[in-house]
Amino acid sequence: MTQRLRSYVRDNWVDGEGDLAQLVNPTTEEALAETTTAGIDFGAALAHARDVGGPALRDMTFAERGKLLQAMASEIHKFREELVDLAIANGGNTRGDAKFDIDGATGTLHWYASLGEKLGNRRILVDGDSEQLTRSPKLVGQHIYQPLTGAAVFINAFNFPAWGFGEKAATAILAGMPVVTKPATSTAVVAWRIAEILVDACLMPKGSLTLLCGGAGDLLDHLTSQDVVAFTGSSDTGATIRSHASVVRHNTRVNVEADSLNAAVLGADVEHGSDTYEMFLREVAKDVTQKAGQKCTAIRRVFVPEAMVAQVREDLADRMREVKVGDPNLAEVRMGPLATARQLKDVRAGVDRLRSVCEVVLGDVDIAGNGRGMLTGVDNDKGFFLSPTLLVAPSLDCAEVHGFEVFGPVATILPYSPDASNVAGVSSLIDAIRLGGGGLVSSIYTDDIEIARAFVTGAGPYHGRLTIGGAKVAEHSPGPGAVLPMMIHGGPGRAGGGEELGGLRGITHFMQRTAVQGYGPLLEKLWG
Amino acid sequence: MTQRLRSYVRDNWVDGEGDLAQLVNPTTEEALAETTTAGIDFGAALAHARDVGGPALRDMTFAERGKLLQAMASEIHKFREELVDLAIANGGNTRGDAKFDIDGATGTLHWYASLGEKLGNRRILVDGDSEQLTRSPKLVGQHIYQPLTGAAVFINAFNFPAWGFGEKAATAILAGMPVVTKPATSTAVVAWRIAEILVDACLMPKGSLTLLCGGAGDLLDHLTSQDVVAFTGSSDTGATIRSHASVVRHNTRVNVEADSLNAAVLGADVEHGSDTYEMFLREVAKDVTQKAGQKCTAIRRVFVPEAMVAQVREDLADRMREVKVGDPNLAEVRMGPLATARQLKDVRAGVDRLRSVCEVVLGDVDIAGNGRGMLTGVDNDKGFFLSPTLLVAPSLDCAEVHGFEVFGPVATILPYSPDASNVAGVSSLIDAIRLGGGGLVSSIYTDDIEIARAFVTGAGPYHGRLTIGGAKVAEHSPGPGAVLPMMIHGGPGRAGGGEELGGLRGITHFMQRTAVQGYGPLLEKLWG
Repeated sequence: MTQRLRSYVRDNWVDGEGDLAQLVNPTTEEALAETTTAGIDFGAALAHARDVGGPALRDMTFAERGKLLQAMASEIHKFREELVDLAIANGGNTRGDAKFDIDGATGTLHWYASLGEKLGNRRILVDGDSEQLTRSPKLVGQHIYQPLTGAAVFINAFNFPAWGFGEKAATAILAGMPVVTKPATSTAVVAWRIAEILVDACLMPKGSLTLLCGGAGDLLDHLTSQDVVAFTGSSDTGATIRSHASVVRHNTRVNVEADSLNAAVLGADVEHGSDTYEMFLREVAKDVTQKAGQKCTAIRRVFVPEAMVAQVREDLADRMREVKVGDPNLAEVRMGPLATARQLKDVRAGVDRLRSVCEVVLGDVDIAGNGRGMLTGVDNDKGFFLSPTLLVAPSLDCAEVHGFEVFGPVATILPYSPDASNVAGVSSLIDAIRLGGGGLVSSIYTDDIEIARAFVTGAGPYHGRLTIGGAKVAEHSPGPGAVLPMMIHGGPGRAGGGEELGGLRGITHFMQRTAVQGYGPLLEKLWG
Repeated sequence: MTQRLRSYVRDNWVDGEGDLAQLVNPTTEEALAETTTAGIDFGAALAHARDVGGPALRDMTFAERGKLLQAMASEIHKFREELVDLAIANGGNTRGDAKFDIDGATGTLHWYASLGEKLGNRRILVDGDSEQLTRSPKLVGQHIYQPLTGAAVFINAFNFPAWGFGEKAATAILAGMPVVTKPATSTAVVAWRIAEILVDACLMPKGSLTLLCGGAGDLLDHLTSQDVVAFTGSSDTGATIRSHASVVRHNTRVNVEADSLNAAVLGADVEHGSDTYEMFLREVAKDVTQKAGQKCTAIRRVFVPEAMVAQVREDLADRMREVKVGDPNLAEVRMGPLATARQLKDVRAGVDRLRSVCEVVLGDVDIAGNGRGMLTGVDNDKGFFLSPTLLVAPSLDCAEVHGFEVFGPVATILPYSPDASNVAGVSSLIDAIRLGGGGLVSSIYTDDIEIARAFVTGAGPYHGRLTIGGAKVAEHSPGPGAVLPMMIHGGPGRAGGGEELGGLRGITHFMQRTAVQGYGPLLEKLWG
């Protein structure tokens, strides 16, 4: 029986009218739910958020908004098991994948709840110290942040229906902006259920939560200069949003997280079998296969010193081969199907493109066809399955590997030449990393500080985040793919040029920074 | 004799080829200079800046870059008198206007030189505290800033050829990015001469300064994801840049300062003749006429309590009438012509539009025609003159006044109704201020903290800067129109959605923020 999803607009659950999008279970290909936003008045939805939700949230202090986030986190957590089941059914997530998504949402809400408590009973955020402006100490300037008066519009990706909502909502609501969230239609069940949980609990102030469950329609046409769009998805859609007439006319803020050819580098100093080497293998294998590689932070390019390539391809293939692919309901299965038929088609095409120039070490793209015997717990010909895939590029500058993201469980080893004349080869290595055109996160595994330094200096300007693995942190690392609330998430260029999270930094994207100049003691009284 | 301006490209002075743009003296309409960028290879110019200038600047520490800025400021200052004369000739500036522009440039360079000294002998800027990421204290995260590896491309407005370059160059160079600057062609003489002064002094590292003296040609086509565009000018051009294919494809950072209907509010508590009242009159009259009102921060809308309108229109008209208009070479002249024939045409059309709904208190738009007798030191029919113009709107919500910027010495009084039920009328007042759609700076003149509070809260989200005038600071204020290096300059919506200056904040626009995760003591060593 197919679930009809609804949108939550102007504090009411509403059905769209017209053709319904079909949501399927990617393991069984059975219809699971249907939804549409056709006929919903997006202009009125946004106006309600701005006119009702905005004032309600702005009237609350940071501490009060923090309490709201805490209540949201607790409420979602109560339904964790149900949400895990929905994520398995609609997203093809394994239980581990589903928890990564759902606990990511509640964990981030919880973290920002604590930040709200720390910010306390005020509504204005002071930025930096006050500055004397002229020779007289009487006249000072102070930068402050206040929430924008529009709506925070989220357009989220299919891969993290819970966390994608949670991380954006945590920051927008703590800032004081009402949320209008549009999950990706194909995996909207979890996002829809979370909205229902929050609405049922009567936690949210009126107007502070709007759910648009289906297509984006003419949503962007209604944007104003006080709205913020936070988008996660493809570069192409990001470009469409950035160049949309309303966005350009109003200089609407747009925060984009898009494609990223994240790199992992094995340092030239790392010996086979060392703790750092094992950490490298463990993190790469996990990162490539978690959520079937459908993670914007997943490692796509693995840079290995030439002399180590033979060893690494064997060891990494062994690790990836251990990952059981199949029905994600089964505890022993570590990787489920891709989320949609479209995803499978795109990833297969991408692998074909890589295979045209790279050597295949592991991976049968035909796993969903003739290779079905490799699947665990699947005894029919259904499901959008693909096996973990490892390739080796013929050279460091192989254009296909650097220029094209395959959004699945697919990684390519690139050989680099350590050369003592340029800090253990990092110069040509850095050039190659930069060919990715800007990324969300890249990682290096090394215990040599000069190699780490060259990596941070060289790759830093092209990345929003870098991780440095090594023997000292081998046991403690969450891996480069984990996005933590206190660290920024985003990156320049291909990655979208956006930035989210990063503690306090994350809430400022939903606020206006204003320099206020006046009599010092007066300013002190205004926010002291 | 007409001066031929050249561009400085790949560390050489070059002439463009083709039709020359003519630069005139707006007082005499005589030809002054000519230039073109046609035929110049912009792609090669940018590549040289990135490949030669970028590494040279990045190799310097903040302290060294600060010394460079100090040397630039000193060198420009040496030629102050010559530059003042050029600004009078090419910009129609009075001597005071010219100094405001040129000293603004050197002052800002000097201020950032000091900041460079404070930042010291390092190349990485640490942002915030380090954060423990997991239960183990070993693994920490730290945000850092490093310069982007592209070029900082400035597209500047005609009104501040010196300061517009100086404020952008100070922040970009201190950040570690090479400068590619394109002044507005019509008033390029001062910007060209400053570049020549800097080149002649052999101060700048190779590749760190490029001057494009003329049209922008295909400059934007060559942008990459590591470049930054800093633009000051009209909203329309801002929109063109933001939606340009290269910018959208590469998510190139674009920082826009555009139109702004800056407001000045006379608080309902202010009595006629008080210090605060006098400050209000003084600042408004100065701000509207300085640089013939061709300032992005100039006051366009003057909000006055209904009961005070009759008094204020008379007092303000008196002040503005005192401003002598004419040949800017003369010491007694306080306002010169508009900068170009096009400006005159646009401002006249704008005044006509305002006159169609507002009452004219002061101002003869025909001053350059039949009204020439009002001009000082002008005895022919040349020059792009306009008189200071003051209008009164029929009502607070007059759409023409809020929706349309007249970029000249023109301001409109809007009556508002103080109402004790909503903090002295600030509610409807705030609504009206917000009709400007987002601005660079607005000001209030009040000695009532609750009025100040309502203004900051209500107008803040729509502005990059606010000033609060009052009796305590009446003698110390530089006025809302002065842009200070320690305070941000920019604003949301119509104002472009950008942000410049603001001390350290200003240099981060040319840097990438990166979260680095790793072993705490290792990270400490990398930038400790």
